[in-house]
Amino acid sequence: MRHFVEELDYLRSRLLEMSSLVEDSVYRSVLCLTEKDPQQAQKVLQNEAEINRMEIEIDDLATGLLALQQPMATDLRLLTSAIKINNDLERMGDLAVNIVERALSLISEPLIKPLVDIPSMASRVQSMIRKCLDAFVHRDGELARTVLVSDDAVDELRDAVYEELISYMERDPKTVRQGINLMFVARNLERLADHATNIAEDVLFLVEGVDVRHHAEARE
Amino acid sequence: MRHFVEELDYLRSRLLEMSSLVEDSVYRSVLCLTEKDPQQAQKVLQNEAEINRMEIEIDDLATGLLALQQPMATDLRLLTSAIKINNDLERMGDLAVNIVERALSLISEPLIKPLVDIPSMASRVQSMIRKCLDAFVHRDGELARTVLVSDDAVDELRDAVYEELISYMERDPKTVRQGINLMFVARNLERLADHATNIAEDVLFLVEGVDVRHHAEARE
Repeated sequence: MRHFVEELDYLRSRLLEMSSLVEDSVYRSVLCLTEKDPQQAQKVLQNEAEINRMEIEIDDLATGLLALQQPMATDLRLLTSAIKINNDLERMGDLAVNIVERALSLISEPLIKPLVDIPSMASRVQSMIRKCLDAFVHRDGELARTVLVSDDAVDELRDAVYEELISYMERDPKTVRQGINLMFVARNLERLADHATNIAEDVLFLVEGVDVRHHAEARE
Repeated sequence: MRHFVEELDYLRSRLLEMSSLVEDSVYRSVLCLTEKDPQQAQKVLQNEAEINRMEIEIDDLATGLLALQQPMATDLRLLTSAIKINNDLERMGDLAVNIVERALSLISEPLIKPLVDIPSMASRVQSMIRKCLDAFVHRDGELARTVLVSDDAVDELRDAVYEELISYMERDPKTVRQGINLMFVARNLERLADHATNIAEDVLFLVEGVDVRHHAEARE
């Protein structure tokens, strides 16, 4: 067995790889919607299968490290954070699949309008995912805080998307089904941002010992 | 400090109390909707504050037990499961608050129709919450499996709610806003059921050593 420190490095690198897959899935899920490209959907489903395998591997790895060693307080928090982050990333993979399902049900009809805010939400979410995992790996509290700020921006975009879609639906009942599908896409992107925010909060607790979890909720 | 076994019992009992608060919140959030009773909303918000406090307490307790003892494999899995279940319960408290927010925005207008499927979803979800925590505390795999079955029933009810609301909205654009609020209530109930299912899957892994996580997803 490798040395404990090496094992922790490996754990961090696997979480980083997992987050890259999630980020790729978010990007492709929205491409599937905007480009009406079913190939992207295929890739998101492949990513999800891989993410699910990684979740089990990382969970076993972290639990094994908790069992075999008697970690110091700092390493212990790192391991319990890794277990939570792993859980978040796995659910984020599922959310990208939800987006793909909505995209596929819209693939054969023209969109009500060119999509602007939804791709913009997606690119912010991708950046949040990258930042929260970088913050975890490099123990960078400042970077983690930028994720909390981005979350507010994503919530605002979601509200704008909802209002615009509702006004379409109220004017033309034929747009109801499509409008609802697009609202759920925005909703899934917002939930992805929430998971990235949870990860950033875990990182802040890990790095600074500050529990921002429920302050962050008050902020919302 | 109490004996390790007593500490584990205390941890289990706190998670059970936390789940009772979540169950109460689900019940009241739907009552707030059906009875147009803002008092219920107040109670759900109080519950959420208490749930948030408990999350931090339980997280510290479980992490402390991981740190101070060198738990055997079984206890180790119990502690990592407790950390995950705690996380799920906290998010379930938030979902009940989401329902209350939708209920409050509908409080001053008559409902499109008497609600039947939404209260029925809620009572199934309450039962799932109770069962998955009882299964955890009593290490009852059979009980945990009944939660997985209920999840499918909740998904079917959600589909029925969606279809009915969409047909209202398509017929009468004045119902769009209310219809969307009610769809999000159903969506939040379904997510509550998903969290209960995650907990049941953790329990099965803990009790039977069977990892059903991604089989369960294939099942959906």
